[in-house]
Amino acid sequence: MSDSDRFEKGAEVMQKLLGRVPEEGAMQEDFRQITVKNLFGDIWTRPGLAVRDRSLITCAVLTALGREPQLRIHMKGALNVGISREEILEMMVHIAHYAGWPTAVNGTHVAEAVFKEIDEADG
Amino acid sequence: MSDSDRFEKGAEVMQKLLGRVPEEGAMQEDFRQITVKNLFGDIWTRPGLAVRDRSLITCAVLTALGREPQLRIHMKGALNVGISREEILEMMVHIAHYAGWPTAVNGTHVAEAVFKEIDEADG
Amino acid sequence: MSDSDRFEKGAEVMQKLLGRVPEEGAMQEDFRQITVKNLFGDIWTRPGLAVRDRSLITCAVLTALGREPQLRIHMKGALNVGISREEILEMMVHIAHYAGWPTAVNGTHVAEAVFKEIDEADG
Amino acid sequence: MSDSDRFEKGAEVMQKLLGRVPEEGAMQEDFRQITVKNLFGDIWTRPGLAVRDRSLITCAVLTALGREPQLRIHMKGALNVGISREEILEMMVHIAHYAGWPTAVNGTHVAEAVFKEIDEADG
Amino acid sequence: MSDSDRFEKGAEVMQKLLGRVPEEGAMQEDFRQITVKNLFGDIWTRPGLAVRDRSLITCAVLTALGREPQLRIHMKGALNVGISREEILEMMVHIAHYAGWPTAVNGTHVAEAVFKEIDEADG
Amino acid sequence: MSDSDRFEKGAEVMQKLLGRVPEEGAMQEDFRQITVKNLFGDIWTRPGLAVRDRSLITCAVLTALGREPQLRIHMKGALNVGISREEILEMMVHIAHYAGWPTAVNGTHVAEAVFKEIDEADG
Repeated sequence: MSDSDRFEKGAEVMQKLLGRVPEEGAMQEDFRQITVKNLFGDIWTRPGLAVRDRSLITCAVLTALGREPQLRIHMKGALNVGISREEILEMMVHIAHYAGWPTAVNGTHVAEAVFKEIDEADG
Repeated sequence: MSDSDRFEKGAEVMQKLLGRVPEEGAMQEDFRQITVKNLFGDIWTRPGLAVRDRSLITCAVLTALGREPQLRIHMKGALNVGISREEILEMMVHIAHYAGWPTAVNGTHVAEAVFKEIDEADG
Repeated sequence: MSDSDRFEKGAEVMQKLLGRVPEEGAMQEDFRQITVKNLFGDIWTRPGLAVRDRSLITCAVLTALGREPQLRIHMKGALNVGISREEILEMMVHIAHYAGWPTAVNGTHVAEAVFKEIDEADG
Repeated sequence: MSDSDRFEKGAEVMQKLLGRVPEEGAMQEDFRQITVKNLFGDIWTRPGLAVRDRSLITCAVLTALGREPQLRIHMKGALNVGISREEILEMMVHIAHYAGWPTAVNGTHVAEAVFKEIDEADG
Repeated sequence: MSDSDRFEKGAEVMQKLLGRVPEEGAMQEDFRQITVKNLFGDIWTRPGLAVRDRSLITCAVLTALGREPQLRIHMKGALNVGISREEILEMMVHIAHYAGWPTAVNGTHVAEAVFKEIDEADG
Repeated sequence: MSDSDRFEKGAEVMQKLLGRVPEEGAMQEDFRQITVKNLFGDIWTRPGLAVRDRSLITCAVLTALGREPQLRIHMKGALNVGISREEILEMMVHIAHYAGWPTAVNGTHVAEAVFKEIDEADG
């Protein structure tokens, strides 16, 4: 597959999942290219694991590792691919026991902020 | 709910997911009670998130945090609740990008060992 | 023990340690219930380890893992159960060597902010 | 304080806590010197936090971070400075909730191995 | 070496690397002394590894562990000892694969903030 | 660049750095392809950061995160690209202060095992 095909494929899944593709200038250009091509173009589009499941485990890993800025972005993605608010909150209760209470409390706060932002945007 | 009801409920989900309930003496008794009652009885049985999804995110978190002895146990659980070998291996490729290559390489090795053990037991 | 007994027991230790029990609406309701009942009602009240020691190791773990919002809360708890400011600051110097300088520098900043807040509230 | 005084001071606390001082050749010589002088000589001997409390938080941090070879060494130290087996096991139940179940299960296994080793040495 | 020699030696490397030595009152006094004497005086001045290499690996470790306040300080240090902006950004692309994308995205944001601050100060 | 060009490019850098390219069957095939093509072919060959520096920061990150099986492989790589044994051991002393003593002690043990293995192979 050519580089531009990989980029296009990655941009498509980013648009569908996250609602946007980072524009030129949004981040260091090479890292942007690699993110769109390698991470989204090559990996997220692979068969073998449903996009919903990829979204679920991405949120779980980001919660457990305490990567809150990225969790915020991927929680919106989770909602976009059909994971419910209830499932997201329940995931936090579950992860509390495998990665410790604080990661899950922080994840719950991220979820509450994301839900509020969406509700306010919806008027 | 009474303490013995909580234990029974937890033992049931452990049996179904992991194929066994830790016997008295298998680990420090109080921790065993809390594991069966609080973690499996109270948490794993909650509605709001399917057992398959709980299993998926448990494996994802254990991989990302490098908890290999527990990953081994929960990978068998994942197979028991209908997650395929292909999905488990693909989860590793995915997590490589969110928690780093080494966690995923280690997770793949755990998966290969689990699959082999099952195949050998099946003769 | 009944669910309401577990809640009451947990609320009592939270009040004594942290000076407050999270009210309904303060966080997702199920997680609040589980936090009060399972974490504080079942665990913090157990014999075998003094509350002071539980507080000490909780602060140590939160420092080492970089969970600063929770560290802030539990440092106040530490002071409430008789751990001195000097002991808290010295804990940071010690942990620097087991979890790395940055975790301890961040923990020291949290301590300084907590001490200042208390001093200002005391007028 | 001179370098040899710092070494001697560190060796003394290592002997008392861990029952031994690493001999020349036991590890890379510079790192051995820095460990005895800086970590044990300068830090463990400081006032402001009791040796028992230093031992307790060291074990807690090592458990939470999953540093099992060091946890094994420091658990023996904990027993040497008067922390009981019951307290060590209870610490694990507590930490399960702040750093996740797997860290505490692994810590419990380390404790059981240490207790067994001591019992066997005692005949 | 005397304590005041160790302090002076540490202060010198801090000045050269980070452009400043923390003044009395900037942080808890004992921790400040230990930081200047043990970490900078004893360690950073050791032969065996060039200061540029120490700076490079310090930034790498801080990125991988998500210690952003310290990364900000040490990135300025990296530029001071001759590591280029291009090398810093490329380090982030590389680390994305060993510690996960989020650590590297956060590190890139820190780098962009540091570069901007320097450019603005340079007018 | 075509997929086979990316593979070839990655295989070349793996051969030079690590002395081998994982053969078909050595690990799950898709992950092997992605490792050779994306990680080594796309990333390790990029300009902007010397291979020696990539090797240095890879070892540093693996040490800090406690990824010992991978550290073992990349330490051999470090020696292959001209990093000395002294530099590797000194890196451990340095990292002890940023990621905690245990990570560095474990890294030192890995180094000692690697050096011994090489010396024995050299007869």
